[in-house]
Amino acid sequence: MADSNRVVVYQGPGKVAVESIDYPKLEIPEEVASHFGIAQKAPHAVILKLVTTNICGSDQHMVRGRTTAPVGQTLGHEITGEVVETGEDVLFVKKGDIVSTPFNIACGRCRLCNEGKTGICLNVNPARPGAAYGYVDMGGWIGGQADYVMVPYADFNLLKFPDRDQALEKILDLTMLSDIFPTGYHGAITAGTTTGSTVYVAGAGPVGLAAAYAAQLLGASVVMVGDMNPERLRQAESFGCVGIDLTSEGELGDKVADIVGEPVVDAAVDAVGFEARGHGEGAAEAPATVLNDAMTIARAGAGIGIPGLYVTGDPGAVDDAAKEGTLGVRLGLGWSKSNYFVTGQCPVKQYNRKLMNMILSDKADIGKAVNATVITLDEAPEGYASFDQGVARKYVIDPHGMVA
Amino acid sequence: MADSNRVVVYQGPGKVAVESIDYPKLEIPEEVASHFGIAQKAPHAVILKLVTTNICGSDQHMVRGRTTAPVGQTLGHEITGEVVETGEDVLFVKKGDIVSTPFNIACGRCRLCNEGKTGICLNVNPARPGAAYGYVDMGGWIGGQADYVMVPYADFNLLKFPDRDQALEKILDLTMLSDIFPTGYHGAITAGTTTGSTVYVAGAGPVGLAAAYAAQLLGASVVMVGDMNPERLRQAESFGCVGIDLTSEGELGDKVADIVGEPVVDAAVDAVGFEARGHGEGAAEAPATVLNDAMTIARAGAGIGIPGLYVTGDPGAVDDAAKEGTLGVRLGLGWSKSNYFVTGQCPVKQYNRKLMNMILSDKADIGKAVNATVITLDEAPEGYASFDQGVARKYVIDPHGMVA
Amino acid sequence: MADSNRVVVYQGPGKVAVESIDYPKLEIPEEVASHFGIAQKAPHAVILKLVTTNICGSDQHMVRGRTTAPVGQTLGHEITGEVVETGEDVLFVKKGDIVSTPFNIACGRCRLCNEGKTGICLNVNPARPGAAYGYVDMGGWIGGQADYVMVPYADFNLLKFPDRDQALEKILDLTMLSDIFPTGYHGAITAGTTTGSTVYVAGAGPVGLAAAYAAQLLGASVVMVGDMNPERLRQAESFGCVGIDLTSEGELGDKVADIVGEPVVDAAVDAVGFEARGHGEGAAEAPATVLNDAMTIARAGAGIGIPGLYVTGDPGAVDDAAKEGTLGVRLGLGWSKSNYFVTGQCPVKQYNRKLMNMILSDKADIGKAVNATVITLDEAPEGYASFDQGVARKYVIDPHGMVA
Amino acid sequence: MADSNRVVVYQGPGKVAVESIDYPKLEIPEEVASHFGIAQKAPHAVILKLVTTNICGSDQHMVRGRTTAPVGQTLGHEITGEVVETGEDVLFVKKGDIVSTPFNIACGRCRLCNEGKTGICLNVNPARPGAAYGYVDMGGWIGGQADYVMVPYADFNLLKFPDRDQALEKILDLTMLSDIFPTGYHGAITAGTTTGSTVYVAGAGPVGLAAAYAAQLLGASVVMVGDMNPERLRQAESFGCVGIDLTSEGELGDKVADIVGEPVVDAAVDAVGFEARGHGEGAAEAPATVLNDAMTIARAGAGIGIPGLYVTGDPGAVDDAAKEGTLGVRLGLGWSKSNYFVTGQCPVKQYNRKLMNMILSDKADIGKAVNATVITLDEAPEGYASFDQGVARKYVIDPHGMVA
Repeated sequence: MADSNRVVVYQGPGKVAVESIDYPKLEIPEEVASHFGIAQKAPHAVILKLVTTNICGSDQHMVRGRTTAPVGQTLGHEITGEVVETGEDVLFVKKGDIVSTPFNIACGRCRLCNEGKTGICLNVNPARPGAAYGYVDMGGWIGGQADYVMVPYADFNLLKFPDRDQALEKILDLTMLSDIFPTGYHGAITAGTTTGSTVYVAGAGPVGLAAAYAAQLLGASVVMVGDMNPERLRQAESFGCVGIDLTSEGELGDKVADIVGEPVVDAAVDAVGFEARGHGEGAAEAPATVLNDAMTIARAGAGIGIPGLYVTGDPGAVDDAAKEGTLGVRLGLGWSKSNYFVTGQCPVKQYNRKLMNMILSDKADIGKAVNATVITLDEAPEGYASFDQGVARKYVIDPHGMVA
Repeated sequence: MADSNRVVVYQGPGKVAVESIDYPKLEIPEEVASHFGIAQKAPHAVILKLVTTNICGSDQHMVRGRTTAPVGQTLGHEITGEVVETGEDVLFVKKGDIVSTPFNIACGRCRLCNEGKTGICLNVNPARPGAAYGYVDMGGWIGGQADYVMVPYADFNLLKFPDRDQALEKILDLTMLSDIFPTGYHGAITAGTTTGSTVYVAGAGPVGLAAAYAAQLLGASVVMVGDMNPERLRQAESFGCVGIDLTSEGELGDKVADIVGEPVVDAAVDAVGFEARGHGEGAAEAPATVLNDAMTIARAGAGIGIPGLYVTGDPGAVDDAAKEGTLGVRLGLGWSKSNYFVTGQCPVKQYNRKLMNMILSDKADIGKAVNATVITLDEAPEGYASFDQGVARKYVIDPHGMVA
Repeated sequence: MADSNRVVVYQGPGKVAVESIDYPKLEIPEEVASHFGIAQKAPHAVILKLVTTNICGSDQHMVRGRTTAPVGQTLGHEITGEVVETGEDVLFVKKGDIVSTPFNIACGRCRLCNEGKTGICLNVNPARPGAAYGYVDMGGWIGGQADYVMVPYADFNLLKFPDRDQALEKILDLTMLSDIFPTGYHGAITAGTTTGSTVYVAGAGPVGLAAAYAAQLLGASVVMVGDMNPERLRQAESFGCVGIDLTSEGELGDKVADIVGEPVVDAAVDAVGFEARGHGEGAAEAPATVLNDAMTIARAGAGIGIPGLYVTGDPGAVDDAAKEGTLGVRLGLGWSKSNYFVTGQCPVKQYNRKLMNMILSDKADIGKAVNATVITLDEAPEGYASFDQGVARKYVIDPHGMVA
Repeated sequence: MADSNRVVVYQGPGKVAVESIDYPKLEIPEEVASHFGIAQKAPHAVILKLVTTNICGSDQHMVRGRTTAPVGQTLGHEITGEVVETGEDVLFVKKGDIVSTPFNIACGRCRLCNEGKTGICLNVNPARPGAAYGYVDMGGWIGGQADYVMVPYADFNLLKFPDRDQALEKILDLTMLSDIFPTGYHGAITAGTTTGSTVYVAGAGPVGLAAAYAAQLLGASVVMVGDMNPERLRQAESFGCVGIDLTSEGELGDKVADIVGEPVVDAAVDAVGFEARGHGEGAAEAPATVLNDAMTIARAGAGIGIPGLYVTGDPGAVDDAAKEGTLGVRLGLGWSKSNYFVTGQCPVKQYNRKLMNMILSDKADIGKAVNATVITLDEAPEGYASFDQGVARKYVIDPHGMVA
């Protein structure tokens, strides 16, 4: 067992660094324990040695200074690891298991976990329902862009890969199970994607690509992906999607009609969220624009899945309303077409086993679809910078050199 | 057969009158026929002699001048009648049948009707999916606050009551099947109301009352109804709901907590729509306030059903954004709690048979719940005026004196 | 803490007795621990002091000698109690809490529990998925018709009542949450019961009555209950159902038609199971007769919910096929009408919180509906005998005299 | 317009022939009109010139003499055609349109059609809910293995292909939309197939192959197909399924475990029906064997989709019970595992548009998967004979030489 631990830490707008912190203990955060009146000691927890841990677009919101994350905030919620220590009440996960960790921390014992809503667990965050590793206002759980990390309620939270060697062989696909593959799938399925659907995904970042890939698994007949970044559009096209360049002239509906013969789609996914920009070269930030676009091209009766993050506090927003998360939504338009809207963090556990089965059966090359790119833990700061520039890559940190 | 027909007509802001028009023909509106390239002659249509026809809150939007309805617009979409003439391709509905007519006109032959989405039929309105009798921008179909009315696609649209005498006996309940009872039910069920739910309904007008009543049928454990009109709150309390006076001091969440022990509910229904006002005495119009209230008290993961009407064009709105139906929605709040939102016209056919069964089995006293009040056709103008003043009544017009 | 424990024990066909056994430990059965390779010591468990514990119809299968239950089998799976001892990893349930215990024992950590299928948990029974307290072939867990009982995975399994005094006041209703109320509800809802449905429930024992009551909560317009026992039929009629006397002349379809005007229903529930008998006076056992009856009167497209127990081994069956659970099912009939069939143990956790809310809001008098009758633990043998005679009572054992 | 019509006719066990009958009229069968009290004249109907019309496995039940079909019964319910004549109330389908016709005849106006249950329409068959073209006891509608055929309620029943040239180019795929592709999809989806599922399909005839193909579209990770015919197994393997040879030694569960590592699957489909045989060389007919096999390998909680036909009367059955459709089902086994069962004719309209979209977007090569083989109408008798011998082909009759 190691006696120290390296972890990626936010050091102020635009800055992250790898720092040393204590090796994790089988304990939950003090703030969680005291708020819920439970013990800090956690017989239900395990320590994982990280196999892979990815940089996420939602980390960038913090790093850009668009949240209230304090300097010193540890980062990392896309965690795949090897179990190296188990609490006394961890019965079904064993030392040596290679496991995927949903980014949402969940107790498995509350009403909402019982209903499968692990993204809004009631027992893990004093501030609100739902928690995550290494994220501001999400319960104070230490981040997993690290050598080691503690995972609570491990029997409930962890998804064990059936075979260690197979897992390591497919690790660049399996590492996407902790967040973006399920999150993209959640966006696609809550938008109503099914056999034969035409689908529009707004945003060709990793979540958008994962949503597009998931839409294909769900049987979409045509998947279109809109973005302003040509490299990301090429990435979407690499696995059979049709890219839509949002910087070009013309209405989105017309571009859709050029592809599918009508200016509407059966399902629309907002994979951008609150840092959305308007269309056209040099467009300014316009936080509801993606959602309103999605509504514009959604067929009457269609669903709009919103895996893109919207927040209740955005100090860097363009206006006072947006600073508290109030956006100008074309509700009249959506209402007139009987659209429905599904928001929120993806409950990863509802999907990760299914998607694992697809990967292990050679039916889902998600790592290739999002252009998984391995870096060391020390390279994490460059990874953040490069990702923020819009490179069409998903960075996978390999802290212990375990990835072949 | 009569050779004339009386109908309620909009004559400008605040004014309606009963006028004489031609007896209806078995023909669809010319604008519909030409747009869709089909014949005006309608072998699928019937003529109904009105038994009852109700005044609806959504009629008031037109009468208040809050829409683009032209002077001369015929009114009335809550239609219950006796079949007096049938086209050649009307096979299963017969002369003499007493029938309920969903306010949404639907062809029964398009993709969306096939999916049960009769509120957004593709073949009945040149302007957009979905149509209704006697409503602006809804296809030009003649209104049914009249002596007689034409109903197209009658085998599909009409719900036949099994027994004429029984139907007339329960007509004050059955008349609510054309719109508000299903619309309220749609709000309650799309909000996720089920056995044991706590439910908040915003608005104690007829649709709000119907939503509250429907929530009880769906098994709600506690139903709260918020309004600023004391008479309407008393009406809600008359059938077991808890009224919440929105003019009083204090946060809505606190008022909810006083009733159910926590500041959140399992399901929330917006039965107000775009003409919403802020809380407190003399509050001004604030079009997103009801929706944002609903979001505030919705439990994490809860649904918000929105039967209240939102529009794409509101010339009388408080600001330019609202004039085109863009409202300041607290999307960040809803997203952080994983809420979902269901909008649009109720597809009446999904619910009216079920609710008819409840009425005919003495399990649903909806007429009493909404305080059904019979008036003559000539009294319609006074009914509109009185309803606009906020009286806690649902006016049921009885053009032929058929109601006992 | 007590140092002994009384429990009801099967002593051979027709015989039960109250015996003394050891006070429970925070340990799982040795057979479970060794089969699954986990520790016997159970930090996730609690000890409950029984408040109430009911006699169930499925206990009778054992007591009648219709199973392979050995002499010495402890009995009792309908458990409501007070927490008197908690393991180290029990965090959210506290000493002094009054709780309902689902009869299905579930780990809350396996794939099927994650999907809400707690009736077929993978980690609690070496013999097959699913376990229960005090039941043959269900994992060796000690029965709860006792003074004290151990409950594993307590944070997951237990439903806490919010207020102790309120709980004790409504205990004759709340005690039904451990099994028959959810089981009846499961039968009704899986049969497709919804607003306005006509429903037929086969069997007016406690589960049948609970299914009928649940059907009413789900909005059924008419609920019919068939049985051959007049006292039980009267019980069904006491809360608004229509009793159908199966001993009388005539086809079931005709009897249904006399009540609802057509020989079919929207939903059918088999609340009898494998010890079914044919109709008419002195009819012999006919194990598929109830199911085939249900199929006969189910409307085309209707569902058939089958909460009644069917088994894989029935040594006392009428023929060799039935001895291994193979029954003569009219599959051709069901297929021609597109019926669907839902079988299996009720996953109690999916429903018990909802039904608790109904009881605590004075919306569900289930104790009265099933005629809850309090007896002491020492009276359990007479309770078994009386219940086996077909009395229309649900016996609730009160081991500690806590029921007012 | 032609003035005669050729059609395939049953001439007694083992014999079919092409005969001349009258050119179809816009009229419904007299027996339907008189039973339902409606006119024979059908303004809602069209005449189709057949483009393709397939031989179905369910036709074979009649031709083998396993039904009560009379000599002279016209055959053919898998109909794709060109509209050549339309009734006065056919508004949205036009002359010249190329259309797919669901094998289930449905009125689009009854309660069950409104619920999407077009396989059990209430207005098309005096004998029971549901009807089909050219089938015994299915309403007397004339079969479509013909030059021309009448289709009633055409706006409702017909699925129009958007482009004539494209339709004719893909006709060997599109022709499967009238029955087997939707029927296979219905089997797969009602069994619960979703992303990552392991699926077992019993039977590698055309419906089994279509179910297997549909399971892949639904996202199955592994699809296994069991049969005793090596040629058909090779066909299943041609598109990525794993064939299981049921004539070989060993338990089915062991064979499944060899493929997926456990003796159970997530979803099971019975694509055989009542003419099932036992396993092993020379096994006799055993009508419940396939269903019981499916139950044996279904995971606890899994669904079993039963598109294979079971009947209420089978004069050629092995025993008296089977003659009336009563089969020895291992209900105890299914119940102990909480399985559910979905039976009945596929409601084609729920799926055909979705599957058309997949074909037109080059996402579904169903014609190749089932080995579509074009023959002339005159070759139909040889096609029947060859198919009955178990050839791994799906015969597509091309009466007018329109297939390239």
